[in-house]
Amino acid sequence: IMPDEMARRLILERGDGGARHFEDAVPDPSSPVIGILGTGDFSRSLARRLVASGYQVVVGSRTPTRFVALFPEEAEVTTQLEAANKADLIFVAVYPEHHSTLMDLKQTLAGKTLVDVSNSLSINHKGPSNAELLADYFPGSFVVKGFNTVSAWTLQMGARDGGRQVFLCSNSQTAKNLVKSICHRMGFIPVDMGLLSSSLEIENLPLYLFPSWRLPVLCMLILFIFFYLYNFIRDVLYPFITEHKSAFYKMPIEVVNVTLPSVALVMLALVYLPGLLAAFLQLWSGTKYNRFPNWLDRWLLSRKQLGLCSFLCAVLHAVYSLCLPLRKSAQFKLSNMAYKQVKKGMEDSWVDEEVWRMELYLSVGIMALGLLSLLAVTSLPSVAGTINWREFSFIQSTLGYCALFMATAHTLFYGWNRAFVLARYHFYMPPTFVLVLVLPFVVLLGRAALCLPCVAGRLRKIRRGWERNRHIRFMLPAEDCRNGVENVSNV
Amino acid sequence: IMPDEMARRLILERGDGGARHFEDAVPDPSSPVIGILGTGDFSRSLARRLVASGYQVVVGSRTPTRFVALFPEEAEVTTQLEAANKADLIFVAVYPEHHSTLMDLKQTLAGKTLVDVSNSLSINHKGPSNAELLADYFPGSFVVKGFNTVSAWTLQMGARDGGRQVFLCSNSQTAKNLVKSICHRMGFIPVDMGLLSSSLEIENLPLYLFPSWRLPVLCMLILFIFFYLYNFIRDVLYPFITEHKSAFYKMPIEVVNVTLPSVALVMLALVYLPGLLAAFLQLWSGTKYNRFPNWLDRWLLSRKQLGLCSFLCAVLHAVYSLCLPLRKSAQFKLSNMAYKQVKKGMEDSWVDEEVWRMELYLSVGIMALGLLSLLAVTSLPSVAGTINWREFSFIQSTLGYCALFMATAHTLFYGWNRAFVLARYHFYMPPTFVLVLVLPFVVLLGRAALCLPCVAGRLRKIRRGWERNRHIRFMLPAEDCRNGVENVSNV
Amino acid sequence: IMPDEMARRLILERGDGGARHFEDAVPDPSSPVIGILGTGDFSRSLARRLVASGYQVVVGSRTPTRFVALFPEEAEVTTQLEAANKADLIFVAVYPEHHSTLMDLKQTLAGKTLVDVSNSLSINHKGPSNAELLADYFPGSFVVKGFNTVSAWTLQMGARDGGRQVFLCSNSQTAKNLVKSICHRMGFIPVDMGLLSSSLEIENLPLYLFPSWRLPVLCMLILFIFFYLYNFIRDVLYPFITEHKSAFYKMPIEVVNVTLPSVALVMLALVYLPGLLAAFLQLWSGTKYNRFPNWLDRWLLSRKQLGLCSFLCAVLHAVYSLCLPLRKSAQFKLSNMAYKQVKKGMEDSWVDEEVWRMELYLSVGIMALGLLSLLAVTSLPSVAGTINWREFSFIQSTLGYCALFMATAHTLFYGWNRAFVLARYHFYMPPTFVLVLVLPFVVLLGRAALCLPCVAGRLRKIRRGWERNRHIRFMLPAEDCRNGVENVSNV
Repeated sequence: IMPDEMARRLILERGDGGARHFEDAVPDPSSPVIGILGTGDFSRSLARRLVASGYQVVVGSRTPTRFVALFPEEAEVTTQLEAANKADLIFVAVYPEHHSTLMDLKQTLAGKTLVDVSNSLSINHKGPSNAELLADYFPGSFVVKGFNTVSAWTLQMGARDGGRQVFLCSNSQTAKNLVKSICHRMGFIPVDMGLLSSSLEIENLPLYLFPSWRLPVLCMLILFIFFYLYNFIRDVLYPFITEHKSAFYKMPIEVVNVTLPSVALVMLALVYLPGLLAAFLQLWSGTKYNRFPNWLDRWLLSRKQLGLCSFLCAVLHAVYSLCLPLRKSAQFKLSNMAYKQVKKGMEDSWVDEEVWRMELYLSVGIMALGLLSLLAVTSLPSVAGTINWREFSFIQSTLGYCALFMATAHTLFYGWNRAFVLARYHFYMPPTFVLVLVLPFVVLLGRAALCLPCVAGRLRKIRRGWERNRHIRFMLPAEDCRNGVENVSNV
Repeated sequence: IMPDEMARRLILERGDGGARHFEDAVPDPSSPVIGILGTGDFSRSLARRLVASGYQVVVGSRTPTRFVALFPEEAEVTTQLEAANKADLIFVAVYPEHHSTLMDLKQTLAGKTLVDVSNSLSINHKGPSNAELLADYFPGSFVVKGFNTVSAWTLQMGARDGGRQVFLCSNSQTAKNLVKSICHRMGFIPVDMGLLSSSLEIENLPLYLFPSWRLPVLCMLILFIFFYLYNFIRDVLYPFITEHKSAFYKMPIEVVNVTLPSVALVMLALVYLPGLLAAFLQLWSGTKYNRFPNWLDRWLLSRKQLGLCSFLCAVLHAVYSLCLPLRKSAQFKLSNMAYKQVKKGMEDSWVDEEVWRMELYLSVGIMALGLLSLLAVTSLPSVAGTINWREFSFIQSTLGYCALFMATAHTLFYGWNRAFVLARYHFYMPPTFVLVLVLPFVVLLGRAALCLPCVAGRLRKIRRGWERNRHIRFMLPAEDCRNGVENVSNV
Repeated sequence: IMPDEMARRLILERGDGGARHFEDAVPDPSSPVIGILGTGDFSRSLARRLVASGYQVVVGSRTPTRFVALFPEEAEVTTQLEAANKADLIFVAVYPEHHSTLMDLKQTLAGKTLVDVSNSLSINHKGPSNAELLADYFPGSFVVKGFNTVSAWTLQMGARDGGRQVFLCSNSQTAKNLVKSICHRMGFIPVDMGLLSSSLEIENLPLYLFPSWRLPVLCMLILFIFFYLYNFIRDVLYPFITEHKSAFYKMPIEVVNVTLPSVALVMLALVYLPGLLAAFLQLWSGTKYNRFPNWLDRWLLSRKQLGLCSFLCAVLHAVYSLCLPLRKSAQFKLSNMAYKQVKKGMEDSWVDEEVWRMELYLSVGIMALGLLSLLAVTSLPSVAGTINWREFSFIQSTLGYCALFMATAHTLFYGWNRAFVLARYHFYMPPTFVLVLVLPFVVLLGRAALCLPCVAGRLRKIRRGWERNRHIRFMLPAEDCRNGVENVSNV
């Protein structure tokens, strides 16, 4: 994916794409001969890597003479037949659509291990996978799917960026183990994905485009559009229609800046709602052994993304707000305000209530943002990897709820008493913050309900494996306690 | 801890919690039989994982019939006795308090390897650990502690988030090695923690709640409270008592915003103080082979956390400051200022000194913040992992001192000549920045002292292994040079 | 490099530097005896680690009695000769300059594996490397280079921070494999670097100081100085000379704040320029099998750094801008503005065009910054590691160009019609933004050209391996498709 600094450094300092030191590594005769069919970039990088790990490599090509120059000299470039003969394990690095062209190697490849490294061309195409097709072509051989998630670049750099994983699957455990050992020796971490029937999903892995982000982002966009229109009508259209005052200049910043916090708060509530639902579902069904409905499972899985979207909106809201006094419009207003004051001849324009309202909602807002930032940082893979489950749940659950509470308070202070000022109901539409506050209130109340001793105790029992209908306390599975902790942390 | 994107993706697209492809993996007969006692979530995920890695799995339960449905079909679910019989290595996944219920398996388990996966229930409980108790119950068996830091979820996902570590300890090296190989095959990274006497600390690992953060955060809170009260008295109480002017509106933002930078600067100084102390201690004792006192060791170890706390305060200070002009109070003041100017009829209210003071301390402050952000980013595990020691020390030490210097300059410019204006000494209390500057000055002077050629030379010699009392230059341990570099970087 | 939390935790809680549990691990007799020559910090940590991994360790010292106390008790500390005798694999942890002192062990070490763990003292010194010298001293032994990138600290902590890599090279594959297995057992990830001729670069690795950052940072500094001077002349010197108005107070903030965005935008353009050049080069040469010129290779490799520098400038620009209204100077100006308004007696100072201009360029600027932040986050190693190539290229290429476009729009809105106002051409120097816009325009136009169907199609063909001169369609190398995608993503 991205070569780490070390790798980059070595190239920079060599300037030859990291090839040289591979060139002069020595294959040890003891190690098995590995064949490669195909001569593309991937084949070349693979050959380099294998040679560097001390394997003997034989490359099979239709036109050996033409490609020999492109391969490290330790790798023997020859005809496909000879390559297939010499090696016991062969990487098939030719286009899936050309697999048929290998049919005349059928006898030679029988009993040998074939590694299919191809990707599927479209993500929607429903099986059979390339690997399964290859297995049909060569029933006598043992097909292993793998290495397709590794790029030629990573191969050449030799997985220097640490935990490079290779997803493997095959119907032959022995063939799989053989490939696993090669992975290890090349410095990759093999991940066993079971039978060849998993090959389709492995072939699709490189084609995904943020599947787990689709729903949250969509949800964010819909909320944004809704609130933007709502605020546009209230803050721009209303004064235009009623008093013919053109406030269209508000569209790029002010309206956006009222919309963003609304989206942020609602989405933050959406992060904690599914956990509540799950808890109440368990309480209702009186067991933790029932599967959650599918939509709830997906919702629970996309909480991280929902949270980060909410954080994005919150940060943008902060930036927009901080930009407000920069604007010429703000300066003009101030100057006009001073003008009025002078005209009125009033020494001091101070209004204590307005001052307090603003000081309060600003400070609470900053704290909420600070907490959200903590949550965002700890959801970085490398940070999340260094903290244990208890710490993770403390941050994501305890601090998360504090953030939700703060954000709600921020909105309440902002609203002050305006929810009860009729003049604010333009076209009978309540101020935005009134709509926004509904969901957070529901979530906070729900959470409070779960803290009631009776409810909490029942939930804890259920999560330790207790079931309403069958009271087997004599022999509880260990670890339920720990997983109990985990689930609680999701609430 | 947190499943990586790939894992999430596979579930999303399967919607069956990643179970299916495990279901249909084939155990290879050659591989050893592994037993599991207990049928909780952890047992189930463990069984899945083992089957997926091609092991034969036998699960022992009190009520096999009831749980058979919950396990992958390749795993044989049977009585505890039969499971204990069939397997040579058995995972004990039952509550520690139920270990006694396994006593009747004593003969069967003799000579076999038992893996205890339990956690301690409370962090404070002093040994013996569950594993040690298990070892007492089954003196004939070889007990290995491990896998308790791995969650059922991670097991099911198959450690796809790369460097998942498993902490192992045991009194039998062979048993440990056996479990290590299983770890590797399951895609985990075993970490050897020595003898079973380490089991207590391993059992505690999942229960820690940011132990390394406790002191720094505590220190931050104390400093915050102290400076908040100090500023409250100076900026709010003083005008109220002396002139009956109510400035309580300053409490949420302005007072906080004078407090935060004070905390930030003092803590930044605390980051570099222990390194200085260590250096002077080495100079004084004339050797590097003496251990530092314990408190200094801990202090040296919590520098990263101290630094990040300081960074947090600095960022909050920046945000609070940027919010200042947003506030109604600021607008009222401006308007009043304009009013006065008009009344006075002065064309231009420009005061050059005030302008320069502000421009200077703002720009210096921004640079300090920029440097601190660099330090913060490089202390992210994944970033720190890609840079070598020299780079790390350059950032954390060289740039760190620049940041400290900048922050001090920022405060000096802010103070301007006010330290010498008597009117600023409300209740004879010096302005906050005077108190704050003490520690940074001490640290910067100390660092400067270490740069004096004579001192620096002596220190370098000491860190290359030289000792005042014994002049053995003939045979210096290699690597002292490198470690020298490391220590220097801590100064 | 940086010990992960777990490690830190264990020490904190033990307070004895993580030593104890190593102390009491048991070496298993079956495992090979490993020798260490030298008694420095590194030797001690290495001994601890090896003992902990269950090896028998023999340490050879000139003065065994003196150092025995410093080593774990399982490690035998004896004379160099005896150590060399007992062990088959010996770590040479003595200063390179003392290698000669080992000459009398020549016979004993013959046929054994020597691991050289030393670093080169200066980065510029051209070979032979320490390891090669060692190999010359002991022609009868098999020298392996490695472990020099690992610090004593990491050794002691036992590579708990996951993917700790050890770079190995040697002329003897068997010796290398032996060391590799030891790496694995110690929990490190060995990375094969081929023959001993690579040892020099391995010895240099710990001495690098951000080599990949040098050019980008240099480029940033040069651009900064140029634009700063340019703006200084236009905004400070010009008014001073023409109207004797002193605007020197602008130097710390305002001039910097006009300079930073210029640097940011130009550097962002420089990120995407090399990709374009590469594409056009491929179109022109009609093949992808020609190597790019060296300067282009390096440029392509430093795009990440260029991008992050640009991001840094953009963020600083944002912070500086947000500070503007904080300044006393801004307040004075506002107050004066109000004064003038009152004097003129104009009710409303509103100027619609200025308002719109500002609202527009602010909002577009914020969006650009938001996109850049996304790019920055995904270039964090741990984040980049969790996304596949398609996602990476989507972010870095698609979103990247959006960011470039936004930033250009931001500058255009800022410029408004001022490029055509002669009064703005102080000393006949065009306004800064005019200079700045040249490069971004070139890049955006170039990119647009590549989107023309004919060009795009031709490029796609070339990247699938097609060549103008030789039309071999019959047998395309597999994977070219994928690598095609990769390359495209670089454009």
